[in-house]
Amino acid sequence: MFKKRENIYDIEEGNLLSPKFDNDGLIPVITMCSKTKDILMHGYMNVEALKKTIETKEAHYFSRSRKAIWHKGKTSGFTQNVTEIRIDDDQDSIWLTVDIGDGASCHVGYRSCFYRSVPLGKIKNDNKLEMEFKEKEKIFDPKKVYKNEPNPTKL
Amino acid sequence: MFKKRENIYDIEEGNLLSPKFDNDGLIPVITMCSKTKDILMHGYMNVEALKKTIETKEAHYFSRSRKAIWHKGKTSGFTQNVTEIRIDDDQDSIWLTVDIGDGASCHVGYRSCFYRSVPLGKIKNDNKLEMEFKEKEKIFDPKKVYKNEPNPTKL
Repeated sequence: MFKKRENIYDIEEGNLLSPKFDNDGLIPVITMCSKTKDILMHGYMNVEALKKTIETKEAHYFSRSRKAIWHKGKTSGFTQNVTEIRIDDDQDSIWLTVDIGDGASCHVGYRSCFYRSVPLGKIKNDNKLEMEFKEKEKIFDPKKVYKNEPNPTKL
Repeated sequence: MFKKRENIYDIEEGNLLSPKFDNDGLIPVITMCSKTKDILMHGYMNVEALKKTIETKEAHYFSRSRKAIWHKGKTSGFTQNVTEIRIDDDQDSIWLTVDIGDGASCHVGYRSCFYRSVPLGKIKNDNKLEMEFKEKEKIFDPKKVYKNEPNPTKL
């Protein structure tokens, strides 16, 4: 299914998919909303997740916390319909564009996982950096949707 | 400068920047073009690169191949002026929006590193996957710009 990575020219200038998976067998994935162009999430895929995503046109990831294939939206109902997959120059990261309708992508309840922005400019006396919430309201209540499932966020 | 990661609630719902760096001291970064909303590249930052990016408003990364801070555009002239930094729910990935004017971001010469799209749908008999070039022309000639610098792409 994937071309063997044999030379740099083919990887960069060729037209055959030849992805690089890291030592854990994973490739990072950027997921963009087709409607708003916001980044929804940053995840990882293994070979099986990438194959399932290409074939089913629904985003599948590899959950590092659960160490298992993760069909996004299976629990929450918020599946991601893939409209485009791109790969970068050295084929070690993926950009997925997905349609989530009026749904959400973030397990905290927001539409995008990236709901806070970081202040720019000189940092005063090593002060803590106060972020701004760019999304004001949650789309869903994670307690109702995920019930007793463990929170994937780790310290 | 960064709040200590002490509890999940503060990380997800708080307003203080508290990024998680992986075992190599890195955090993945998604870089978007402010004009086209295309993803330009996927990179990594260490603490110093993130601090420099916040303070100078020019994107700094950590080069895994060179194992050094990388002020993007220092060689090519294609610096990235940061217009926004966002962080995700568990604060382990960053979304950077940057202005690159009419410049380019990809060391191969294209505007975006993600210049090829992957075909969607059933994979026939484990055939190789033929990608489509979404950018037809290079913005610059990497041989002229980078001269004798080693290619960062690795097998």
